[in-house]
Amino acid sequence: MKQTSKNIAIIGSGLVGSLLAIYLKRLGHTITVFDRRPDIRNIEFSGRSINLAMSNRGWQSLAEVGIEDEIKKIAIPLDKRAMHVTDKPIYFQKYGKEGEAIWSISRGVLNKKMIDLAEEAGVEFRFDEKVWNVNLPEATLFTGETEKGEWTEYNYDIIFGCDGAFSRVRHKMQRRSRFDYSQNFIDVGYKELSIPANEDGTHKLDKNSFHIWPRGKFMLIAMPNIDGSFTCTLFMPFEGDVSFESIQTKEQAKDFFKTYFPNVRKEIENLTEDFFNNPTSAMVTMKCYPWTYWDKVALVGDSAHAIVPFYGQGMNAGFEDIFVLKEKIEKYGDDWEAVFKEYQEERKPNADAIAELSYRNFVEMSSKTADPKFLLQKKIEKHFASLHPDKWIPAYSRVTFSNRPYSEALEMGDAQEAIMQKVLEMPNIADKWDSAEVEQKILSLI
Amino acid sequence: MKQTSKNIAIIGSGLVGSLLAIYLKRLGHTITVFDRRPDIRNIEFSGRSINLAMSNRGWQSLAEVGIEDEIKKIAIPLDKRAMHVTDKPIYFQKYGKEGEAIWSISRGVLNKKMIDLAEEAGVEFRFDEKVWNVNLPEATLFTGETEKGEWTEYNYDIIFGCDGAFSRVRHKMQRRSRFDYSQNFIDVGYKELSIPANEDGTHKLDKNSFHIWPRGKFMLIAMPNIDGSFTCTLFMPFEGDVSFESIQTKEQAKDFFKTYFPNVRKEIENLTEDFFNNPTSAMVTMKCYPWTYWDKVALVGDSAHAIVPFYGQGMNAGFEDIFVLKEKIEKYGDDWEAVFKEYQEERKPNADAIAELSYRNFVEMSSKTADPKFLLQKKIEKHFASLHPDKWIPAYSRVTFSNRPYSEALEMGDAQEAIMQKVLEMPNIADKWDSAEVEQKILSLI
Repeated sequence: MKQTSKNIAIIGSGLVGSLLAIYLKRLGHTITVFDRRPDIRNIEFSGRSINLAMSNRGWQSLAEVGIEDEIKKIAIPLDKRAMHVTDKPIYFQKYGKEGEAIWSISRGVLNKKMIDLAEEAGVEFRFDEKVWNVNLPEATLFTGETEKGEWTEYNYDIIFGCDGAFSRVRHKMQRRSRFDYSQNFIDVGYKELSIPANEDGTHKLDKNSFHIWPRGKFMLIAMPNIDGSFTCTLFMPFEGDVSFESIQTKEQAKDFFKTYFPNVRKEIENLTEDFFNNPTSAMVTMKCYPWTYWDKVALVGDSAHAIVPFYGQGMNAGFEDIFVLKEKIEKYGDDWEAVFKEYQEERKPNADAIAELSYRNFVEMSSKTADPKFLLQKKIEKHFASLHPDKWIPAYSRVTFSNRPYSEALEMGDAQEAIMQKVLEMPNIADKWDSAEVEQKILSLI
Repeated sequence: MKQTSKNIAIIGSGLVGSLLAIYLKRLGHTITVFDRRPDIRNIEFSGRSINLAMSNRGWQSLAEVGIEDEIKKIAIPLDKRAMHVTDKPIYFQKYGKEGEAIWSISRGVLNKKMIDLAEEAGVEFRFDEKVWNVNLPEATLFTGETEKGEWTEYNYDIIFGCDGAFSRVRHKMQRRSRFDYSQNFIDVGYKELSIPANEDGTHKLDKNSFHIWPRGKFMLIAMPNIDGSFTCTLFMPFEGDVSFESIQTKEQAKDFFKTYFPNVRKEIENLTEDFFNNPTSAMVTMKCYPWTYWDKVALVGDSAHAIVPFYGQGMNAGFEDIFVLKEKIEKYGDDWEAVFKEYQEERKPNADAIAELSYRNFVEMSSKTADPKFLLQKKIEKHFASLHPDKWIPAYSRVTFSNRPYSEALEMGDAQEAIMQKVLEMPNIADKWDSAEVEQKILSLI
């Protein structure tokens, strides 16, 4: 359906804000994007980001506006995990079937590119302009230098809040009655570290792998960048025995890296410097509802549903919001109230599902990877999936390499889990895990 | 332990704020209570409150500062429920054992009395003064006419946030990293209605009963006041077939009362007038953590844990917070950091437990009271408890007539529920529910 051109403000020039700007501009609207921060194209990026893993949902959303190929130029496909386990040589785990991969992209590089593309499309950006208040029923926003200082008023037809987990727009919605909201932090934090390129610009580790050093309560990961470097992320408890709190001096940091990550000890100077230069960040699951206000205001991406990063789906979920929003626009045209209503009703259960899946991945990584029963379960699942790839699609594949709803992946995952609990109750299961009997048992339960 | 006298601000002059003021004043501190609203002693009360049901925990906290008897003068003991069921005569259900009762008090009357008592004790009240910001590490607060206008700064040693479910003090804590928070509304709202006294000042319904008109998806309750009137509360869905939304005209309201509450039809003019004069209010469960900031700021009562009113424990839980806070003060004296730490660690699981119990009571009332299996379960429990009162203390009694932790009541309640689920699986249970066989079965499971 055709739409009347509207004057639309988007709050936030991050990944979701700039992609939404491109979508809406292409549909014929006038778009202004506000951001409280300066233009990231002119500044050093933050040192607090985890590399992105673009997967199916993300690519689909980019393809819809024809920018998939452009973005692939700044991305590196990872078709496997490289496991750096203590006292064992590195080993690899394929992510999916032949040709299936997730793509590593630096958040800074991608965001700069997206803003370029949005500008080329005709979107206006107003950087360094802080939105302090939003009048929801009027779609009016107020910006200014300080919260208590003078404000400028702007009136729009529609406002989109793409301003992240600590959204100012949502904050305004939150103060209305009957707005459900929750924010829950995990007791693990993260810190960005880096491994620079070799002198000839090549990568120091296999560039088509997602590198993981699992260490029980903490974990290091590394993802490649196109300049030959790796962006690493150290996930570790804030407090406790081995924790961010417990590492206070350069000596302690060096000891820590030497002890737990011996195969990156050549990078130790760099890692130690980053450790003290870069901030320690917290991770939150944020849920809320409703996401929209009349036909005036809507939340998209992290502002509506922030999740922990352990499934690599934060950006993908935000991009999929935009894809779904466009489907609703095509269905309802100028009836923005209907567009918003169906958008939030369809997306909410999926956002809740990926939040749950991401949190479970965190729990799995921090407490279950040393549990023999859990490892046996994973082994049985993998074996069965290799025998019957059409009958046992792992939740990871449903989330990462498909565009079926997240809620379906969660549901199917729960059903598989129930089957496996029954299988694990079979007598002597540890000895016969790859037997025909177990295979038949699973087949009978599916 | 003795404490050094501190200069303490309490934000909020509600029930919890004024009782805390009395406690702390008695301990030798200088107390100023701020409230954004005018002094309720000089104005008409809101028309949006549910009568309070003071029970064991509340009385214990008042007795600790010797004001129990004073408050009993404005309270009416209710030893039973009066059930107004359709097509049946009224019947009564005792709350507990002989002498056990909950006490009905008008919120307005109690709050005025508490402020009087706090003033007599030497507490300073600053009404009509709005707190807009709190500097947590400095224990500084900022008040003023408007959020954007000029502010006055006050510096204290300690600040207590007793400013309710939508606390400004908590709001400030909430913006820090790693603060867990949730607010969840139920889809049922409530409205205050009233039944005036007879001309001779007597009550129109039995004055020592908690009156309930259960109607499945909605419900009317009435609790007596000392002036002969009843404060009624209508609980009903916001939207749907029979809902606040569906009653728009006086005719519709009269029809509604006539159809569903025939035995109060004499009061229909009054009820209808109240229906349109009084606001419809929402109900929320609010959880957060931490409740304190260093040795500077602490949340007490609804600002730390708001619950739905279906267990009648909101005020009781807030008063118990104060009782526990005093225990910690006696233990740790001037070490306010230790006081606050142990206070929040001890109270948090109990606040979560009463939130859960209250929400379950809501679910029970709105969806289970028509379920024959649930009714059978209640019948079996009651029968068994009458045979073995020492072996089967109902959760309601543990919550209402004891001062054991709420978390214990929840735990024991869950254990009883598990037993009952097994009992309900017995063949022909509906026919033999009061048999010795069932009694023996329960005894074997306890």
